[in-house]
Amino acid sequence: GPVAAALRELRCSCLQTTQGVQPEMISNLQVFAIGPQCSEVEVVASLKNGTEICLDPQAPFLKKVIQKILDGENKDN
Amino acid sequence: GPVAAALRELRCSCLQTTQGVQPEMISNLQVFAIGPQCSEVEVVASLKNGTEICLDPQAPFLKKVIQKILDGENKDN
Repeated sequence: GPVAAALRELRCSCLQTTQGVQPEMISNLQVFAIGPQCSEVEVVASLKNGTEICLDPQAPFLKKVIQKILDGENKDN
Repeated sequence: GPVAAALRELRCSCLQTTQGVQPEMISNLQVFAIGPQCSEVEVVASLKNGTEICLDPQAPFLKKVIQKILDGENKDN
Protein backbone atom coordinates (compact mmCIF):
# COMPACT_ATOMS: atom_id res chain seq x y z
CA GLY A 1 0.00 0.00 0.00
CA PRO A 2 1.01 3.65 -0.18
CA VAL A 3 2.23 3.78 3.42
CA ALA A 4 4.44 0.71 3.00
CA ALA A 5 5.78 2.14 -0.26
CA ALA A 6 6.58 5.45 1.44
CA LEU A 7 8.50 3.59 4.12
CA ARG A 8 10.73 2.03 1.56
CA GLU A 9 11.58 5.55 0.35
CA LEU A 10 13.64 5.98 3.50
CA ARG A 11 11.57 8.36 5.57
CA CYS A 12 8.97 8.15 8.32
CA SER A 13 5.53 7.62 6.93
CA CYS A 14 3.18 7.89 9.88
CA LEU A 15 2.12 11.54 10.15
CA GLN A 16 -0.53 10.75 12.73
CA THR A 17 -1.83 7.66 14.48
CA THR A 18 -5.35 6.31 14.79
CA GLN A 19 -6.49 5.91 18.40
CA GLY A 20 -8.38 2.63 18.13
CA VAL A 21 -9.02 -0.21 15.72
CA GLN A 22 -11.14 -3.34 15.69
CA PRO A 23 -8.77 -6.34 15.63
CA GLU A 24 -11.17 -8.12 13.27
CA MET A 25 -10.59 -5.34 10.72
CA ILE A 26 -6.86 -6.01 10.47
CA SER A 27 -5.47 -8.21 7.72
CA ASN A 28 -1.87 -7.52 8.62
CA LEU A 29 0.15 -5.44 10.98
CA GLN A 30 3.66 -4.24 10.30
CA VAL A 31 6.04 -3.02 12.99
CA PHE A 32 8.97 -1.00 11.65
CA ALA A 33 11.88 -0.83 14.05
CA ILE A 34 13.86 2.37 14.50
CA GLY A 35 16.27 2.41 11.59
CA PRO A 36 17.98 4.47 8.93
CA GLN A 37 14.66 5.28 7.29
CA CYS A 38 12.99 6.62 10.45
CA SER A 39 14.14 7.38 13.99
CA GLU A 40 10.79 6.36 15.43
CA VAL A 41 9.11 3.00 15.69
CA GLU A 42 6.14 2.86 13.31
CA VAL A 43 3.18 0.49 13.32
CA VAL A 44 1.15 0.22 10.11
CA ALA A 45 -2.07 -1.83 10.02
CA SER A 46 -3.45 -2.90 6.67
CA LEU A 47 -7.18 -3.25 7.03
CA LYS A 48 -9.53 -5.67 5.34
CA ASN A 49 -11.21 -2.73 3.58
CA GLY A 50 -7.96 -2.04 1.79
CA THR A 51 -6.92 1.05 3.75
CA GLU A 52 -3.82 1.48 5.88
CA ILE A 53 -3.67 3.22 9.24
CA CYS A 54 -0.82 4.01 11.61
CA LEU A 55 -1.07 2.98 15.26
CA ASP A 56 0.80 4.40 18.26
CA PRO A 57 3.57 1.94 19.23
CA GLN A 58 3.09 2.86 22.89
CA ALA A 59 -0.73 2.67 22.94
CA PRO A 60 -1.86 0.13 25.56
CA PHE A 61 -4.55 -1.28 23.25
CA LEU A 62 -1.89 -2.21 20.67
CA LYS A 63 -0.54 -5.07 22.77
CA LYS A 64 -4.05 -6.51 23.05
CA VAL A 65 -4.65 -6.15 19.32
CA ILE A 66 -1.36 -7.88 18.49
CA GLN A 67 -2.12 -10.67 20.96
CA LYS A 68 -5.57 -11.22 19.44
CA ILE A 69 -4.11 -11.47 15.95
CA LEU A 70 -1.33 -13.81 17.09
CA ASP A 71 -3.90 -16.02 18.83
CA GLY A 72 -6.00 -16.08 15.70
CA GLU A 73 -8.89 -14.60 17.63
CA ASN A 74 -9.50 -11.61 15.40
CA LYS A 75 -11.68 -13.51 12.98
CA ASP A 76 -15.23 -12.22 12.53
CA ASN A 77 -17.28 -14.67 14.54
CA GLY B 1 10.96 -9.61 -0.11
CA PRO B 2 10.13 -13.01 -1.54
CA VAL B 3 8.10 -14.14 1.47
CA ALA B 4 5.95 -11.01 1.47
CA ALA B 5 5.46 -11.38 -2.30
CA ALA B 6 4.41 -15.01 -1.83
CA LEU B 7 1.83 -13.93 0.75
CA ARG B 8 0.23 -11.58 -1.70
CA GLU B 9 -0.16 -14.58 -4.04
CA LEU B 10 -2.91 -15.86 -1.77
CA ARG B 11 -1.30 -18.80 -0.04
CA CYS B 12 0.61 -19.48 3.18
CA SER B 13 4.25 -18.67 2.83
CA CYS B 14 5.85 -19.88 6.03
CA LEU B 15 6.94 -23.50 5.47
CA GLN B 16 8.87 -23.58 8.71
CA THR B 17 9.65 -21.18 11.53
CA THR B 18 12.94 -20.11 13.03
CA GLN B 19 13.19 -20.80 16.75
CA GLY B 20 14.98 -17.65 17.90
CA VAL B 21 16.07 -14.26 16.63
CA GLN B 22 18.04 -11.33 17.99
CA PRO B 23 15.64 -8.37 18.25
CA GLU B 24 18.46 -6.05 17.13
CA MET B 25 18.59 -7.95 13.84
CA ILE B 26 14.99 -7.11 12.93
CA SER B 27 14.21 -4.16 10.69
CA ASN B 28 10.53 -4.95 10.48
CA LEU B 29 8.07 -7.57 11.61
CA GLN B 30 4.86 -8.38 9.82
CA VAL B 31 1.97 -10.25 11.41
CA PHE B 32 -0.50 -11.70 8.90
CA ALA B 33 -3.89 -12.45 10.42
CA ILE B 34 -5.79 -15.56 9.44
CA GLY B 35 -7.45 -14.67 6.17
CA PRO B 36 -8.43 -15.82 2.69
CA GLN B 37 -4.79 -16.25 1.70
CA CYS B 38 -3.84 -18.49 4.67
CA SER B 39 -5.77 -20.21 7.45
CA GLU B 40 -2.87 -19.76 9.87
CA VAL B 41 -1.42 -16.67 11.47
CA GLU B 42 2.00 -15.97 9.99
CA VAL B 43 4.80 -13.80 11.37
CA VAL B 44 7.50 -12.69 8.95
CA ALA B 45 10.58 -10.83 10.20
CA SER B 46 12.67 -8.89 7.72
CA LEU B 47 16.20 -8.77 9.02
CA LYS B 48 18.79 -6.03 8.69
CA ASN B 49 20.94 -8.41 6.61
CA GLY B 50 18.22 -8.42 3.98
CA THR B 51 16.87 -11.90 4.66
CA GLU B 52 13.37 -12.84 5.81
CA ILE B 53 12.48 -15.48 8.39
CA CYS B 54 9.21 -16.83 9.70
CA LEU B 55 8.56 -16.90 13.44
CA ASP B 56 6.10 -19.06 15.40
CA PRO B 57 3.10 -16.89 16.35
CA GLN B 58 2.74 -18.84 19.61
CA ALA B 59 6.44 -18.81 20.57
CA PRO B 60 6.85 -17.17 24.00
CA PHE B 61 9.93 -15.25 22.90
CA LEU B 62 7.92 -13.53 20.14
CA LYS B 63 6.02 -11.35 22.61
CA LYS B 64 9.32 -10.17 24.11
CA VAL B 65 10.78 -9.48 20.67
CA ILE B 66 7.71 -7.46 19.65
CA GLN B 67 7.79 -5.54 22.91
CA LYS B 68 11.48 -4.69 22.46
CA ILE B 69 10.86 -3.40 18.96
CA LEU B 70 7.82 -1.38 20.04
CA ASP B 71 9.82 0.14 22.90
CA GLY B 72 12.59 1.03 20.49
CA GLU B 73 15.02 -1.05 22.53
CA ASN B 74 16.24 -3.27 19.72
CA LYS B 75 18.87 -0.80 18.52
CA ASP B 76 22.45 -2.03 18.55
CA ASN B 77 23.85 -0.23 21.54
